[in-house]
Amino acid sequence: MTRIPQRTVERFFRYCQFLHTRLEAGSEFVFSHELAGAVGVSPEQVRRDLMNFRLKGTPQRGYPIKEFMGELYSHLESGSLTKMVLVGVGNLGKAILSYFLKRRPNLCIVAAFDLDPEKVDRVYSGCRVHHIGQLERTVSREKATVGIITVPASAAQEAADMLVRAGVRAIVNLAPAQLKLPPGVFLDQIDITLSIEKAAYFARKNSIKEQLR
Amino acid sequence: MTRIPQRTVERFFRYCQFLHTRLEAGSEFVFSHELAGAVGVSPEQVRRDLMNFRLKGTPQRGYPIKEFMGELYSHLESGSLTKMVLVGVGNLGKAILSYFLKRRPNLCIVAAFDLDPEKVDRVYSGCRVHHIGQLERTVSREKATVGIITVPASAAQEAADMLVRAGVRAIVNLAPAQLKLPPGVFLDQIDITLSIEKAAYFARKNSIKEQLR
Repeated sequence: MTRIPQRTVERFFRYCQFLHTRLEAGSEFVFSHELAGAVGVSPEQVRRDLMNFRLKGTPQRGYPIKEFMGELYSHLESGSLTKMVLVGVGNLGKAILSYFLKRRPNLCIVAAFDLDPEKVDRVYSGCRVHHIGQLERTVSREKATVGIITVPASAAQEAADMLVRAGVRAIVNLAPAQLKLPPGVFLDQIDITLSIEKAAYFARKNSIKEQLR
Repeated sequence: MTRIPQRTVERFFRYCQFLHTRLEAGSEFVFSHELAGAVGVSPEQVRRDLMNFRLKGTPQRGYPIKEFMGELYSHLESGSLTKMVLVGVGNLGKAILSYFLKRRPNLCIVAAFDLDPEKVDRVYSGCRVHHIGQLERTVSREKATVGIITVPASAAQEAADMLVRAGVRAIVNLAPAQLKLPPGVFLDQIDITLSIEKAAYFARKNSIKEQLR
């Protein structure tokens, strides 16, 4: 199986997201142009992506949603369980724990870590919080492969280093800090404050433009 | 003043973030290659960006951090107050409210909205929660220009429509739903679950590669 490029993986997950919504709304079929519009890519791109799948659509009804999702999931190999851990049980950490509880059967946060004695040994959304000193042992024992970082910026690199030493293969960092990781470990940075600052910048610009009209 | 492209704005905010950390750590000067390494862009890119500023560096010491930040902030025009509102006071919403309390003097979340009667009229991190029915009136009265959406996916488009009618110029959407907005309204989508699914995908791939070695 060849490695699918990151952008394609992202589109595939977005297709899944949209198809899931449609399925819940009672639809059985979808047209490629609907998918394109919803996901924000060109219809040509959707059709190119579709050529990877054994999927038969008709011009009258479009593509069968359930089979489509089956094909997507088999390409994304999300049939097997992926174990994840979360470092930093603040509000953001708790939001992620509660989101993943039950909603994604194949993605499971098996342990969380924090420094705060008030949080250690408590259970949030079904997930036990361990002291950060237990991180490396717990991650190795559980064979967790994904680490989610929701600590303050100043503690993010240290959390990442511990996760890498413990053997995780991929990290999602939500702390507003740039991390350095060894090659071969996948990293996705999500900087919520950066997005908000950008939005504020463009909001100011848009206001000025209107005033000048 | 010309409009700075989105990617440049993003780099400028990242420079600010790094310079802020350095300043807090007691540094007074920074080299362009340090900045490049920390922010993850090429030294050439940093030098091109620097040509926009009236900033004198020396080969021995690098650039003075305080003046550098002053130049960045004046380009980003973040001297004036930007008023924002937040829709959806779950864990994620609360995390954002607590982050912005006091930390960013020029970015202020002036109101939050929720449906839940338990939350309405309560104050979280200094921000009062109003019933969602008050959104349009409150946003217009406060002249808020940025909306942050932290509601469940199924309610995200409706929240966005209300924000746009009320006059916001920019939206940051953290709900896992693709939004449609009229042209001229800036949109940034942050999909935390998509990032985690992508990380899980690459973690699986990396594991398989190692097993094949």
